[in-house]
Amino acid sequence: MKYRIEKDTMGEVQVPADKYWGAQTERSRNNFKIGNSGSMPQEIIEGFAYLKKAAAYANYDLGVLPIEKRDAIAAVCDEILEGKLDDQFPLVIWQTGSGTQSNMNLNEVIANRAQVLKGFEIGEGEQFIKANDDVNKSQSSNDTFPTGMHIAAYKIVVETTIPSVEKLHATLVKKAAEFKDVVKIGRTHLMDATPLTLGQEISGYAAQLAFGLKALKNTLAHLSEIALGGTAVGTGLNTPKGYDVKVAKYIAQFTNHPFVTAENKFEALAAHDAIVETHGALKQLAVSLNKIANDVRMLASGPRSGIGEILIPENEPGSSIMPGKVNPTQCEALTMVCAQVMGNDVAISVGGMQGHYELNVFKPLMAANFLQSARLLGDACVSFDEHCAQGIEPNHKRIKELVDNSLMLVTSLNTKIGYYKAAEIAQTAHKNGTTLKDEAVRLGYVTPEDFDAWVKPEDMV
Amino acid sequence: MKYRIEKDTMGEVQVPADKYWGAQTERSRNNFKIGNSGSMPQEIIEGFAYLKKAAAYANYDLGVLPIEKRDAIAAVCDEILEGKLDDQFPLVIWQTGSGTQSNMNLNEVIANRAQVLKGFEIGEGEQFIKANDDVNKSQSSNDTFPTGMHIAAYKIVVETTIPSVEKLHATLVKKAAEFKDVVKIGRTHLMDATPLTLGQEISGYAAQLAFGLKALKNTLAHLSEIALGGTAVGTGLNTPKGYDVKVAKYIAQFTNHPFVTAENKFEALAAHDAIVETHGALKQLAVSLNKIANDVRMLASGPRSGIGEILIPENEPGSSIMPGKVNPTQCEALTMVCAQVMGNDVAISVGGMQGHYELNVFKPLMAANFLQSARLLGDACVSFDEHCAQGIEPNHKRIKELVDNSLMLVTSLNTKIGYYKAAEIAQTAHKNGTTLKDEAVRLGYVTPEDFDAWVKPEDMV
Amino acid sequence: MKYRIEKDTMGEVQVPADKYWGAQTERSRNNFKIGNSGSMPQEIIEGFAYLKKAAAYANYDLGVLPIEKRDAIAAVCDEILEGKLDDQFPLVIWQTGSGTQSNMNLNEVIANRAQVLKGFEIGEGEQFIKANDDVNKSQSSNDTFPTGMHIAAYKIVVETTIPSVEKLHATLVKKAAEFKDVVKIGRTHLMDATPLTLGQEISGYAAQLAFGLKALKNTLAHLSEIALGGTAVGTGLNTPKGYDVKVAKYIAQFTNHPFVTAENKFEALAAHDAIVETHGALKQLAVSLNKIANDVRMLASGPRSGIGEILIPENEPGSSIMPGKVNPTQCEALTMVCAQVMGNDVAISVGGMQGHYELNVFKPLMAANFLQSARLLGDACVSFDEHCAQGIEPNHKRIKELVDNSLMLVTSLNTKIGYYKAAEIAQTAHKNGTTLKDEAVRLGYVTPEDFDAWVKPEDMV
Amino acid sequence: MKYRIEKDTMGEVQVPADKYWGAQTERSRNNFKIGNSGSMPQEIIEGFAYLKKAAAYANYDLGVLPIEKRDAIAAVCDEILEGKLDDQFPLVIWQTGSGTQSNMNLNEVIANRAQVLKGFEIGEGEQFIKANDDVNKSQSSNDTFPTGMHIAAYKIVVETTIPSVEKLHATLVKKAAEFKDVVKIGRTHLMDATPLTLGQEISGYAAQLAFGLKALKNTLAHLSEIALGGTAVGTGLNTPKGYDVKVAKYIAQFTNHPFVTAENKFEALAAHDAIVETHGALKQLAVSLNKIANDVRMLASGPRSGIGEILIPENEPGSSIMPGKVNPTQCEALTMVCAQVMGNDVAISVGGMQGHYELNVFKPLMAANFLQSARLLGDACVSFDEHCAQGIEPNHKRIKELVDNSLMLVTSLNTKIGYYKAAEIAQTAHKNGTTLKDEAVRLGYVTPEDFDAWVKPEDMV
Repeated sequence: MKYRIEKDTMGEVQVPADKYWGAQTERSRNNFKIGNSGSMPQEIIEGFAYLKKAAAYANYDLGVLPIEKRDAIAAVCDEILEGKLDDQFPLVIWQTGSGTQSNMNLNEVIANRAQVLKGFEIGEGEQFIKANDDVNKSQSSNDTFPTGMHIAAYKIVVETTIPSVEKLHATLVKKAAEFKDVVKIGRTHLMDATPLTLGQEISGYAAQLAFGLKALKNTLAHLSEIALGGTAVGTGLNTPKGYDVKVAKYIAQFTNHPFVTAENKFEALAAHDAIVETHGALKQLAVSLNKIANDVRMLASGPRSGIGEILIPENEPGSSIMPGKVNPTQCEALTMVCAQVMGNDVAISVGGMQGHYELNVFKPLMAANFLQSARLLGDACVSFDEHCAQGIEPNHKRIKELVDNSLMLVTSLNTKIGYYKAAEIAQTAHKNGTTLKDEAVRLGYVTPEDFDAWVKPEDMV
Repeated sequence: MKYRIEKDTMGEVQVPADKYWGAQTERSRNNFKIGNSGSMPQEIIEGFAYLKKAAAYANYDLGVLPIEKRDAIAAVCDEILEGKLDDQFPLVIWQTGSGTQSNMNLNEVIANRAQVLKGFEIGEGEQFIKANDDVNKSQSSNDTFPTGMHIAAYKIVVETTIPSVEKLHATLVKKAAEFKDVVKIGRTHLMDATPLTLGQEISGYAAQLAFGLKALKNTLAHLSEIALGGTAVGTGLNTPKGYDVKVAKYIAQFTNHPFVTAENKFEALAAHDAIVETHGALKQLAVSLNKIANDVRMLASGPRSGIGEILIPENEPGSSIMPGKVNPTQCEALTMVCAQVMGNDVAISVGGMQGHYELNVFKPLMAANFLQSARLLGDACVSFDEHCAQGIEPNHKRIKELVDNSLMLVTSLNTKIGYYKAAEIAQTAHKNGTTLKDEAVRLGYVTPEDFDAWVKPEDMV
Repeated sequence: MKYRIEKDTMGEVQVPADKYWGAQTERSRNNFKIGNSGSMPQEIIEGFAYLKKAAAYANYDLGVLPIEKRDAIAAVCDEILEGKLDDQFPLVIWQTGSGTQSNMNLNEVIANRAQVLKGFEIGEGEQFIKANDDVNKSQSSNDTFPTGMHIAAYKIVVETTIPSVEKLHATLVKKAAEFKDVVKIGRTHLMDATPLTLGQEISGYAAQLAFGLKALKNTLAHLSEIALGGTAVGTGLNTPKGYDVKVAKYIAQFTNHPFVTAENKFEALAAHDAIVETHGALKQLAVSLNKIANDVRMLASGPRSGIGEILIPENEPGSSIMPGKVNPTQCEALTMVCAQVMGNDVAISVGGMQGHYELNVFKPLMAANFLQSARLLGDACVSFDEHCAQGIEPNHKRIKELVDNSLMLVTSLNTKIGYYKAAEIAQTAHKNGTTLKDEAVRLGYVTPEDFDAWVKPEDMV
Repeated sequence: MKYRIEKDTMGEVQVPADKYWGAQTERSRNNFKIGNSGSMPQEIIEGFAYLKKAAAYANYDLGVLPIEKRDAIAAVCDEILEGKLDDQFPLVIWQTGSGTQSNMNLNEVIANRAQVLKGFEIGEGEQFIKANDDVNKSQSSNDTFPTGMHIAAYKIVVETTIPSVEKLHATLVKKAAEFKDVVKIGRTHLMDATPLTLGQEISGYAAQLAFGLKALKNTLAHLSEIALGGTAVGTGLNTPKGYDVKVAKYIAQFTNHPFVTAENKFEALAAHDAIVETHGALKQLAVSLNKIANDVRMLASGPRSGIGEILIPENEPGSSIMPGKVNPTQCEALTMVCAQVMGNDVAISVGGMQGHYELNVFKPLMAANFLQSARLLGDACVSFDEHCAQGIEPNHKRIKELVDNSLMLVTSLNTKIGYYKAAEIAQTAHKNGTTLKDEAVRLGYVTPEDFDAWVKPEDMV
C-alpha cells in the first residue's frame, strides 16, 4: 500500500495515500484495535456532517469564516450525506470516550476532500481548509460529539422507530376492532378465567404501544437540545456571540427537525441524561413488545398440543429435522430484540452515571447502544407487523370449544348465589369432569333455566 | 398460642385467635415462608385501604351495598390508614404474583374487624360483613392490586420523591448563583481543561435534576390511571354500570390525587408499563445523582492529596483506625442508593416483560422495587441536601492556585496564533515545568503584553 | 426518652440512655435517615460478632490484649450471636460506604455492654473496654466490613442456599426417575415437536440445577478469603506479626467454615469481586429456576383450556372473584424471586465496578443485595419444592391424547422416505385435520404396516 | 441481478444466481430485515463449519454416510474455515430464535458448493449432496446451533480473551514488582489515608485479574459440553448409536479443544446456562477492569490540577480545541467496553431465563452478545496493555511531596498514644495548615525524637 506523511501536534504519521483522513484518524486506527474496524455508527457520521455544515454557515454569518471556506466545507458535508465518502470513516466505537478522534476524522476528511475538490492531490498544496482552525472552528469534540449524537438519535427515533411502532399499533387497533365480538376464554396465572373477546385482548396490546409511543414522544424535547456552542467545557470559549442559537437553527433547517440550543451547556457536555431518558422509553417499548410477542406465540401454539386459538402466517419451514413444522419466528426475532434493548439500557445507564466533572466520556458507547436499540425496535416492529400481526386470524372452532368448556363461567353466579356456592359448583365439576350446569343443578343451587339465563359468555365480556 | 378455626372454599384453617386475618391469609403465611414476614410494603396496604373504602362508597351509590356495610367497611379502612392495625398484615412480597392473598388479607381483616366493632368477638356471631361478597364486592385481586400499587406509587412519588429532589435542586440553584463568579479550572477526561466558574459547574447539576423532575412528572398521567372496575380479566364482570368511573373519583377524593379510571382495563391488568415508565424516570434521576455525588466527592477530596476545591460538612469521624479522617459519607450513601435503583430497574423490567395473557403476575415484586426506589431516592436526596449540599463551600485558595497554574489557558490563544503554535507553547511549558507566558514569549509567538491581555481566566468562562 | 452524653473525636452527642451504642452510632442514626431504620442485615451483625471475637483471641495470643479484655469482648460477641442484643443495631444500609459506622456500632455496643457485665451502669465508670483501642484493636472498618460480609455471605450460601437448591434438585431427580417412561409430546418454539418422556424433560431441569450448584461451589474458594489483617489500606498497619493468619483461623474455628486470610489484602479492600463472582452464580441459578418454574406452570395450565399435562398441588383458593380457581402460585413466587436476583446482580455489579483507589465504598449495598438474593433463592426453593415440585404428577390421560394426536411423529420417517416426503405427509394431515397414517398411506409413501412399525412414540425417546 | 429458482417444502423461491445459498436462506433474508444484513457473527459460521465436518465424519464412521459425501462436505467446511465463502452468509442475528435458518444457510451452501466442486453450475444437475438429508444428517438446528455457539464461545474465550487478560495481568505483576518500594499516600473514600507502595496498589489490580481468570477458567468445563446428538428435543432421534460421543471427539480433534458430548442433552437444548455462566465471569472481569482503568486515569490526572502520581503514555492529541491536551484514552475505551459487557450480561440473562419447554429460542442473541463481550474484552485488554499499562511510570516528585505532607501518617501513633490523642493532633494540624510533628510536639503528646522514630511512611507499608 502507498502512504503519504501527515502531521499533527505530536509529529508525523504515515497515512494510506488514497484516504482523505489525516494523522489523528490514523493514530486512532493504530491505537484502538478493538472489535471490527469502522464500528462507529454511520448515523453519527451523518450527524457530524449536518453539524459541520451548520457550523460553517453560522461561522460565516458571524464573520469568522469566509464564504469560500463555508461553501467548500458544506460541499464535502453534502457528499458525506449522499454516502459518497462512506469508506473514509474507519474508526471504532471503542476510542476516546469523547469521540474526539471521530470529530477529527470528520475534520480531516472534510479538509482534505475540500483540497481535492479545489483541484489538488490529497495532501498536496497549501491547505485551503484547515482541519482544526476551519472545519472545527467554534467547536470542540466535547460539544460536537453530543450534538452529532442528538441529531442521530432524534432522527432515528422520529424517522424509524416511531413510524414503525405506529404501523404495528395501527394493525393491532384494526385487529381489535375486527375481532371485537369473538368471545374467548380469558386466562390469568396461565389458568382458565372468565371470558373476554379476542378484540379486547388485542386492544390491551394496542394500548400498551399507545402508552409507549406517548412516553417516547415525551422525551423528544430533551433530546432536541443540542450542545453545540459549549465548546470545551460548556462556557462557549472561542465562539462568536450568538453562535449557539444560530448554529442550532441551521441544524434544524438542514435536518428538518426542531433542534434548539441547550439551555445549559454544562449539563449537555457532562451528562447525557437525554440519551438515558429516551432510551428508557425504548426499553419500556421492549417490555411491552416482549409481552405482546409472547402472548401471540402462546395463543398460536400447537398445531395440536398447544393453545391454538389464533393462526399466524406460516413464513418458512420451521425445522431442519421435523418436517412440516412451522414456528412463530417473528415473535422470536422480536423478543430477542427486546432482550437486546434491555441489555442496552443497562449499558447506557452505566455509561451515563459515570461522567466526571465537565465531561462524560462514554459518549460513543451510549450513542452506539441507543442507535442499535432504536434501529432494531423499528425494523423488528415492521417485520413483526408485516409477517405476523397483519396475518393474525382467530381459530373460531378452537376458541368456541374452549370457552364452552370452561369452568370459570361460574363467576357470573357470584352475584346470584354467592362466592362460596359458586366455588363448590366449579370444584365439583372439575373433580368429576362434568359441566357447570350439571353440577349447579345437581347441587340444587340453580335451576336449569336460571343457569342458562345467567351464564352466558357473551354477556360476560 | 391460642387459635380459632377459619374456613374458606378449601376447608378449615387454624388462625391465631387474636388476629383479624382469616383462612386465606393464614394459608399464605404457611405456604410462602420466603424472606422476612410482613415484607409486603406498608404503602400497598394503605393503597388497599383507600380503594376498599372507595369501592364501598361506589357500591353503595350504585345500589349494591347497604349504607351500614359501607360505613362499617370505611371505618376499618380509616383505622388502617391511621396505622391502628399495622400488625394485621403479615404477608410477604413473594406470594401469588397477583397479590391475591394480600387482597384477601385486607378483605378478611376488614370483615373481622368490622364484626368486632359491632361488638362481637373475632370470628363469633354471624358475619355482618363478608370478606368476598361485601369487602371485595365489584372487585378482583386482579384489579385491586394494580390499583393499590398505582395509589401507593403515585403517592410516594408525588409526596416524597419529587419534593425531596426539588429541595436538593433548589439548593443547587442557590449554590450555582452564589458561586457564579468563582473561576476555577475545568476538567475533561479528568484532565485539566479551560476554566469555568464553580457556579457554572453546579448549574449543570441543577439542570440534570430539572430535566429529571420533568421526565418524572411526564410519567404521572399514565400512573394516575387505575385498573379498578376491570375485575378478573378487564371486562368488568360483576360490577354495576358506571362503577369504574365512580370508584376512581372516590379514590381521587380520599387521596387528594387526580386518579382516573384506566381507559383500557385489559392493559391495566395484563401489563404494568406505567410502573416501568415511572421507574425509568427514577432510574434517570439515579444516573444523574450518581454523577453529581461523584463530582462532589472528587472535588472535595483531600484534605492534602486530592483535588480539594470545595469543602463539605464534616459530619462524623471517618475512620475507626485513622484519627482525624473525615469522609464524603453522604455521597457514598447516595451513590449506593443510585446503584440500588439501577438494579431495581432491571428487576421491574424483567417482571414487566413477563406478563401472560390477561394478567401480569409479578405485581408484588414490581411494587416493592418501585416503592423502595422512590423512598430511597427521596430520603437520600434530603439527607444529601441537608448534610452535604447545603454546606458546600469553595476552597478559594486552592481554586485560585490551580487555575493560575493551568496550561489549558493556552486555548484562548487559538484564535490569535492558531491551534498548532498554541499547542507548542503548552507542550513546552509542560515539559519544562514552566508557565505558559514564559514559553509563549520565549518562543516568540506572543508579546508579554498581548499574553496578559489575551489570557484571562475570568474572560474565558 | 432519657439520654446520656457520649463523646467521640468530634464532640458530645446525646444517646438514648438505655441503649448500648455510643456517639458514632447515634451520629449515623441522625445523619442517615434513609429508608427503614435497622436495615443493615442481621447476618452482617453476626459476621461482625464472629470477627470481633476472633480478633480479641488473636490479639491476646499475640500479646497485645490482656485475657480479661479478650474474654469480656468474647462474652458480648456470644450474646450478640445468641440474639440477645438485637435491638442495639439501629443503623441502615445507606450510610458510609465502608460500613464504618456499623463497625463502630459493634465496637460501641461491645464496649458498653462489657462495662455493664462488669457491674456498671451504661456509660458509668472508667471504660474497662475501649471501643476503638480494644474492640477495634488490629482492625479498621476497611478490613472488618468486608470480613463480616464474607462471613455472612459464605455462611448463608453454604447453610441456606445450597442445601435448599440441593433439596429441590433431589426432588427433580426423583421425579425424573419416576416419570422416565411417561412418553409425551415435545415442544420447541412452543410448537409440537417429537416426543420425549416426562422424566427426560424433568431431568433437564435437574441438570440445570446441578450445573448451577457446581458453578456456585466453584466460587466459594474466593469467598472464603477474608480481608482481616489489612486494616486501613491493606498494608496491615497496626497489626502484630502473624495476626492475619491467626485471626482467620479463629474465624474458621468459630464459624466452622474454612475461612483463610486473603493472599492480597489490597484487592480484598478495594474490590469485592468475590461478591460479584458468587452472586453471578446466584444469578445463573435464578435464570435456571425461572425457566423451570415457567415450564411447570405452562405444563400445569388449564384445567380445561391450557396444556394440562401435569398436575400440581392446589394450595389455596386462587381468586377472590373466580370461585374454584387454583393457580401456580409457587411458580409465581419463585419467578418473582428470580427477577429480584437479576436486578440485585446489576446493583452489585454497579457497586463493584466503582471502587476508588484503596477502597470500594459500596460495601453495605453489595452485602445487602447479596444476602437478600441468597436468602430468597434458598427460601423460595424450599417453598417451591415442598408446595409444588414434590407434588407434580402426570396427567396421563391428557398426555396420551396429545402424543397420539401429534403430527411431529412424522420425523421418524425422515430416515425411511426422506425429509421432503415426510413434510408433505405432515402438511397434508395438518391441512385436512387428519392423521399422519391416513395421509402417509393415501399419498402412497408408506404401507400401513410400515407406518405402524416405524412410527412409535415410545421408540422415539 | 440474475436469479435461479430454489425449492423447499413450502414451494419455490428466487435466489441470486451467483450465491450458493438456497430457498430457506433466501426466505430468511426476506422475512427478517432487522438491522444490518450479515450480522450473524462469523465465529458462529465457523463453529458450524467445524460441526458439519465432524458430523460427516461421525456419520461415515457409523455407516450412514458414504465416504464421497463425507469428503465433499468436509472440503466445503474447510473452505469456509479458510474464509473463502465469507459472502455466502447473509443472515442476521434477529431471525428464528433457534438459528434454524443459519443452520439451513450452512446446509444449503455446503450442498450447492459441493455440487460446483463436482463440476456443475450452482443449482444444476441432480443434487449430489442434499442439504437436509446429507449435510444435516443426524442433526437438528436445535442441537447444531448450541454446538456451534459453544465451539465459538469456547474458542474465543480460550484463544482471545484469556491470553489477552493474561498479558495485561503479566504487565501488572511486573509493574507491581518494579514499584514495590515506591511509598505513596493511600486513599480511602477518595480521602488521604495511610501510605502504601505503588507496587502494592498495582498488586491489587493484578490480584483482581488473577481471580477473574480463575473464575473464567472455572466455567470452561460446562462450556466444553456440546449438544450435538440431541437432535430435535434432546432424545437423539434419527442419530446412529454412539454418534454423540464420536461427533464430539471429531470436534475436539478438529478444533484442538477438549469438547465432550453433553451429559444431559435436554438441558443442552432447552437452556444455555453455560453461556450465562461463562458470561458471568466475563462480567466479573469487566467489573474488575472498570475499577483498574478508573484508578489509572485518576492517578494520572493532571498534569497540574489533578492527582498526578503516575505518568501514562501520551498516544494522541487529546483535544480538537485545547492545544497540548493529552487524555487517558485507553482507560476510556476500556471502561466503555466494561459498560457494554455489563449490558450484554443482562441481555444474555434475559434471553437465558426465557426458554420454553424443550428449547430456548434466544440462541442467536445470546451468542452474539457473548462473542462481542469476549472479543471486546480481549482486544481492549491488549490495547490497554500495550498503549497504557506497559508505559505506567511513577511521578516520584509528586508522590513524595504528597506522602510527606499527609496527615494520615498520624495513624502510626495510635498504638503509642491512643486513637483520641492522635485524632486531636491530626485535626489541629488540618485546621492550622501545619505539620503533624509541629502539633504533636506542641500538644505535648510526643517528643520530636519519638515522632521521627515512630512516624515513618516507609515502615507503614
